[in-house]
Amino acid sequence: MVRNISSRRLNARNAGGEEYEKKRNAIRVAAAAVFREKGYEAASGDDIAKRAGMDRASTYYYYNGKKEIFRDMVGDAVKDNVLMAESIEASDDFPAGKLRRLIEGLFSSYARHYPYLFVYVQEDMTRLMNDKTEWSESMVSLNKRFDDAVIKIVQDGLDDGSFRTKANARLLAIGIISMCNWSHRWFDPSQRLDGDKIAAGFSDMVIDGLAITAK
Amino acid sequence: MVRNISSRRLNARNAGGEEYEKKRNAIRVAAAAVFREKGYEAASGDDIAKRAGMDRASTYYYYNGKKEIFRDMVGDAVKDNVLMAESIEASDDFPAGKLRRLIEGLFSSYARHYPYLFVYVQEDMTRLMNDKTEWSESMVSLNKRFDDAVIKIVQDGLDDGSFRTKANARLLAIGIISMCNWSHRWFDPSQRLDGDKIAAGFSDMVIDGLAITAK
Repeated sequence: MVRNISSRRLNARNAGGEEYEKKRNAIRVAAAAVFREKGYEAASGDDIAKRAGMDRASTYYYYNGKKEIFRDMVGDAVKDNVLMAESIEASDDFPAGKLRRLIEGLFSSYARHYPYLFVYVQEDMTRLMNDKTEWSESMVSLNKRFDDAVIKIVQDGLDDGSFRTKANARLLAIGIISMCNWSHRWFDPSQRLDGDKIAAGFSDMVIDGLAITAK
Repeated sequence: MVRNISSRRLNARNAGGEEYEKKRNAIRVAAAAVFREKGYEAASGDDIAKRAGMDRASTYYYYNGKKEIFRDMVGDAVKDNVLMAESIEASDDFPAGKLRRLIEGLFSSYARHYPYLFVYVQEDMTRLMNDKTEWSESMVSLNKRFDDAVIKIVQDGLDDGSFRTKANARLLAIGIISMCNWSHRWFDPSQRLDGDKIAAGFSDMVIDGLAITAK
């Protein structure tokens, strides 16, 4: 029976029918809502099926459980962000301009992938990483590449003298990433405050500072 | 039986014996470790008992389940932070000085209450607030008082002209609080980087900015 449903799922996926993809999408949307509300660990397959208006057994025709749904929803979004950060880092711009584009790019990505990226950010990946699969290792490596790109941008600014502060690039990068990541608790792209305004406010604060005293 | 254990617990608590308090503390420490690893929702009473080296039934003599442990560990720490933020806000200092003391105070509080405050920060309180108890409402109100104190500090700086930036005080305050809160993912007071250094690095970045261009 289990083998039977897996091979039916595999066949349906390979066939790639429009209706099948629509249902998969509906399950992802339902699962994202449940993950946001209860957290990944506490969410059950029943919760997800109920939210999607399906019975639990039918969901197996589309996904082999919540882990597969989670991976499917966040994988591409995370990869997009890493490629964005790396291409900004490698671009021909001043460090301050890169930092600003990075922060804008992150909020635009949060909005575009809403709420999938927030589901990912809200979960402590060290908790989900106990399984040491190929997937979890690729996520750890993507996270590291993202962090490294931000650290490199800040380090370049310190090296070329356009940034001047006492802390090291890693701590500053953590602060900037933190400021953006925590928005999973309050940012909602359907609300009044759009991502561009948030990104501009945060960029101005970390790049130019709040205080008007001359440096 | 249940009534019996509750009244025995109540009596032991009122008696306030040293051994009894030691055991309660050991359970809190064990629970904090389990909450950090698995998250509050997924943590079970069995996990906590096992970590504390006790059997599940005995833990009821000290705590009536994980909710009570959670509340006990975070309540005082959260209240401390609110009083700190409000007293800094009300003090006689420039806004930039207040902001710096607030960020320092937060990291020192994280270290002092480690890992209890991080357990609290890591949990999305909107998730834990479904029960609408007196406790949950007091936590919502404490969170709001904390946010309000930070917003007021930033607003004062914008009003007296010592801060100059386009974003409003609420967004800036959220950015600063986010930068500190996200440290629950990486800050460990037993490690090399101490709270004072982190706070100084973050304060310099948001108050003075990274860029050296004159404003």
